[in-house]
Amino acid sequence: MAITLGGNQYGKAEVRLVRVDLDGERHRVTDLNVSVALSGDLTDTHLTGGNAHVLPTDTQKNTVYAFARDGVGEIEEFGLRLGEHFVRSQPAIHRARVAFEQYTWDRVEQRPHSFVRNGSGTRTATVTWAEGGVHVVSGLTGLTVMNTTDSEFWGYVKDGYTTLPETTDRILATAVDARWRHDALPSDWAKSYEQARNDLLAAFSDTYSLSLQQTLYAMGQRVLDNQPGIAEIRLALPNKHHFLVDLAPFGLDNPNEVFYAADRPYGLIEGTVRRDDLPEQHSAW
Amino acid sequence: MAITLGGNQYGKAEVRLVRVDLDGERHRVTDLNVSVALSGDLTDTHLTGGNAHVLPTDTQKNTVYAFARDGVGEIEEFGLRLGEHFVRSQPAIHRARVAFEQYTWDRVEQRPHSFVRNGSGTRTATVTWAEGGVHVVSGLTGLTVMNTTDSEFWGYVKDGYTTLPETTDRILATAVDARWRHDALPSDWAKSYEQARNDLLAAFSDTYSLSLQQTLYAMGQRVLDNQPGIAEIRLALPNKHHFLVDLAPFGLDNPNEVFYAADRPYGLIEGTVRRDDLPEQHSAW
Amino acid sequence: MAITLGGNQYGKAEVRLVRVDLDGERHRVTDLNVSVALSGDLTDTHLTGGNAHVLPTDTQKNTVYAFARDGVGEIEEFGLRLGEHFVRSQPAIHRARVAFEQYTWDRVEQRPHSFVRNGSGTRTATVTWAEGGVHVVSGLTGLTVMNTTDSEFWGYVKDGYTTLPETTDRILATAVDARWRHDALPSDWAKSYEQARNDLLAAFSDTYSLSLQQTLYAMGQRVLDNQPGIAEIRLALPNKHHFLVDLAPFGLDNPNEVFYAADRPYGLIEGTVRRDDLPEQHSAW
Amino acid sequence: MAITLGGNQYGKAEVRLVRVDLDGERHRVTDLNVSVALSGDLTDTHLTGGNAHVLPTDTQKNTVYAFARDGVGEIEEFGLRLGEHFVRSQPAIHRARVAFEQYTWDRVEQRPHSFVRNGSGTRTATVTWAEGGVHVVSGLTGLTVMNTTDSEFWGYVKDGYTTLPETTDRILATAVDARWRHDALPSDWAKSYEQARNDLLAAFSDTYSLSLQQTLYAMGQRVLDNQPGIAEIRLALPNKHHFLVDLAPFGLDNPNEVFYAADRPYGLIEGTVRRDDLPEQHSAW
Repeated sequence: MAITLGGNQYGKAEVRLVRVDLDGERHRVTDLNVSVALSGDLTDTHLTGGNAHVLPTDTQKNTVYAFARDGVGEIEEFGLRLGEHFVRSQPAIHRARVAFEQYTWDRVEQRPHSFVRNGSGTRTATVTWAEGGVHVVSGLTGLTVMNTTDSEFWGYVKDGYTTLPETTDRILATAVDARWRHDALPSDWAKSYEQARNDLLAAFSDTYSLSLQQTLYAMGQRVLDNQPGIAEIRLALPNKHHFLVDLAPFGLDNPNEVFYAADRPYGLIEGTVRRDDLPEQHSAW
Repeated sequence: MAITLGGNQYGKAEVRLVRVDLDGERHRVTDLNVSVALSGDLTDTHLTGGNAHVLPTDTQKNTVYAFARDGVGEIEEFGLRLGEHFVRSQPAIHRARVAFEQYTWDRVEQRPHSFVRNGSGTRTATVTWAEGGVHVVSGLTGLTVMNTTDSEFWGYVKDGYTTLPETTDRILATAVDARWRHDALPSDWAKSYEQARNDLLAAFSDTYSLSLQQTLYAMGQRVLDNQPGIAEIRLALPNKHHFLVDLAPFGLDNPNEVFYAADRPYGLIEGTVRRDDLPEQHSAW
Repeated sequence: MAITLGGNQYGKAEVRLVRVDLDGERHRVTDLNVSVALSGDLTDTHLTGGNAHVLPTDTQKNTVYAFARDGVGEIEEFGLRLGEHFVRSQPAIHRARVAFEQYTWDRVEQRPHSFVRNGSGTRTATVTWAEGGVHVVSGLTGLTVMNTTDSEFWGYVKDGYTTLPETTDRILATAVDARWRHDALPSDWAKSYEQARNDLLAAFSDTYSLSLQQTLYAMGQRVLDNQPGIAEIRLALPNKHHFLVDLAPFGLDNPNEVFYAADRPYGLIEGTVRRDDLPEQHSAW
Repeated sequence: MAITLGGNQYGKAEVRLVRVDLDGERHRVTDLNVSVALSGDLTDTHLTGGNAHVLPTDTQKNTVYAFARDGVGEIEEFGLRLGEHFVRSQPAIHRARVAFEQYTWDRVEQRPHSFVRNGSGTRTATVTWAEGGVHVVSGLTGLTVMNTTDSEFWGYVKDGYTTLPETTDRILATAVDARWRHDALPSDWAKSYEQARNDLLAAFSDTYSLSLQQTLYAMGQRVLDNQPGIAEIRLALPNKHHFLVDLAPFGLDNPNEVFYAADRPYGLIEGTVRRDDLPEQHSAW
């Protein structure tokens, strides 16, 4: 009664690929989570650890990014290209499976390179009813937005632990968490909320950004500018890093088109924009 | 150096409230996660367990549902009503904080009582490229939809463990997980996907449902009817239960307006709809 | 080319069952997530919504709880009992699949009815190094604990929204989130942490509880009693409700043995225990 | 009524740091999630995007890893070292806050460099009771284990997309998902489960690994070797990559001590080990 190897496959799962198509002034975004699984003549690696038939999962990941250099198109087409490549180029591989999740981004109205992730953003409110007074804080959380250009970062402190290169063109993406305190209660809450949400999106899109802090302040200022009844806004903006993939080892350039969307760590920028003639209300939050 | 009680509050967190407004033929949906926190003269319960000043968190939850009977409106307004009630009705309570998350639903086009949760649904694809043949499975996952009426459930098996009452009007809500296998590859993948997604939404909305299985079959059938190149579709539909809240203890009726959206357990309906003249392709999935 | 129904199954997923075995003075806990799926002669419900062969998922859930009245034992055994029941009692059902996840609880040392969920609890620390002073807050989060008896709740406020019955015996379960501020920095951080963790567990276990607030205060007091260098402790305790399942409809009693572990909503009890002769340090948190 | 900048801070959140202490033959593991937040004289970056006072969050991350080179110790101590560094070295920074989550690993019994994450692993079972036969599949999921040495990876296929360097010493970490099918039902389910869990841990720990596939096979083989009644075991092992941090830019070596624990992407190795004289039972899974 011998023990033997049954069905098996291996691959790289959850490769986060963001491609920006530079269509003149207008950009388009493709945001994917790609998982590759290969199977074939893989007995050796299971029994003896001999890897002569193993295309490393790291290489599979590289291939996904390199193939994206020529465009992605529909996910089914991209999968067919990748699958054929793996099977045809690797004699030991008899089956390649490529699975995709695709996240949808909507264009921020009339902006050429600003996007909001479809359906993101939950409206929030915190009402504090106390004998000494009533406070209302409105807000939103998880509003995921991205500018595919018009963001720079340079001129910062360098010390012995600096390795980050300066850049004059990067993706700026964040998931907006904002809460604003009403000093005067608006007559129309829904309208006030829509105004604030639109102002946050517009200021994010319109700001040519030298730092995410600058964008944060512009967003808060826009909300306060357009609603005199709002006393203060608190913003927390994770810097959702999109790293340009280095395609040079594969003989390819990468003119700000193929990015890796990282999970952790992330920068986290927090700040308050407020009217300086109104008292703070610590118990409102 | 005495030890003493510092700041404290207590309450019911994450009360899931769905309100359906019956505006003639057209329904509207309000979907909230409500958290209440009260503070005041609560030393006794901390030091001795004396609860004479404690309004139970269960009662707070009941209050949220009972107040929703008269309508919810904007979350800030609902919070003001609730907060004032707690502080004014309870002498020992000096501050009430009511926090909200609001989820947005969009109307399914031109349907009076069918909704899709804003931004839900991720497009998926799995491509299998093998020496023996190529399979493409397209799909979507997490497309959350709800019919606020036109769903019944009765005539089922009763045994010694049955407590469920029959109903001729209930909310039917699910998060669609669907994958369909292409027998002939379409020339336009994006168009094929849009067609399938629209068919799933339309069939869900249009089916007067006597069981979620019936809805499942209708959804699959619609997709196959409209795309001859699709051989098979597999659907998994969690029955996201919305329970009508019993408001009778508070002297209130509840004409299908105030619901509790439950997390677990949930029914799970899985099924395949296929063309019977095409062979199954187990390795495609 | 006819369209037809392929493979299908349906059932109740994620039934949360907690059973307490009353072994004299010592209790034992079984904590399960149970999912049932049935398949068989189910064409009617798919094609016409005829439910004559459908055993509702609600009844499946009831069956899980009712069968637990006689004991659960090992999950494989429980699954065999349930599976056989569904297939043998329902002529239309030809296959039952019962899937389990089992969570492990460890006994709190030498306590007869206090438990800590295996591996729960993450150690935390927040260090604030400012020009004006240094603050260290140590803590833990997610330490899930349960007393299977020695908890009562009665004597609370009743108003027009009260439906909760008073109880003199309930399960008390929570996931401890605690943070404590050091006034004097300890010489041995690891020892200080272990002492605080043990004190939290011991005070939770030892307190005969008339309210979760009372337990909270006792936990905080214990930590401060045993470490003079700790100035203040902040606790947040979700009341993870375990509801006794009503088995009377099935002709069964339920002497505090079979419980439903609810997800949402939950009570949330937050409080601070502090030394009253030390100044508060708001910037430490 | 001027608009002004209120309180603010920025930093790098969720830096995943794993340190291995090489204590002769015995290793020790420290597994942290570190978040840094700095505040001070940061008006310029908010108002104009001038970054002269900004220490990039990337540099903060580098600092965490570089400081870990000299050892971590207790998290409070590590926080004090980091906090003091940021405030003392940056004239514009007046406050540094460093927050930690620490995950606990237990040593696999008597092994010098094998670890299991405390409390990880949920026991599972799937029972299929059908008219044609009964199948029982036992299992576990989420059992997170790590070998801090005795893992190599080399000799694999190189193609035009290869950038991965070969290694003769790496961390091997995974979260075991295993399910095994019983051909003969054991008399003692609990004992059978404990045996299988121990065998999985032991084989993971004992295998000097040339590929994760080799480890997978060894784990499956061990389970089948010790329980003749088990016909087949299916394993899915994500390769939870731990990348050695390059400390050379800071003038430091890194003799396999300081690692970055990555989230995505991850390798995913799936395979079955089975007895070749028993028929497969596809409907059991």
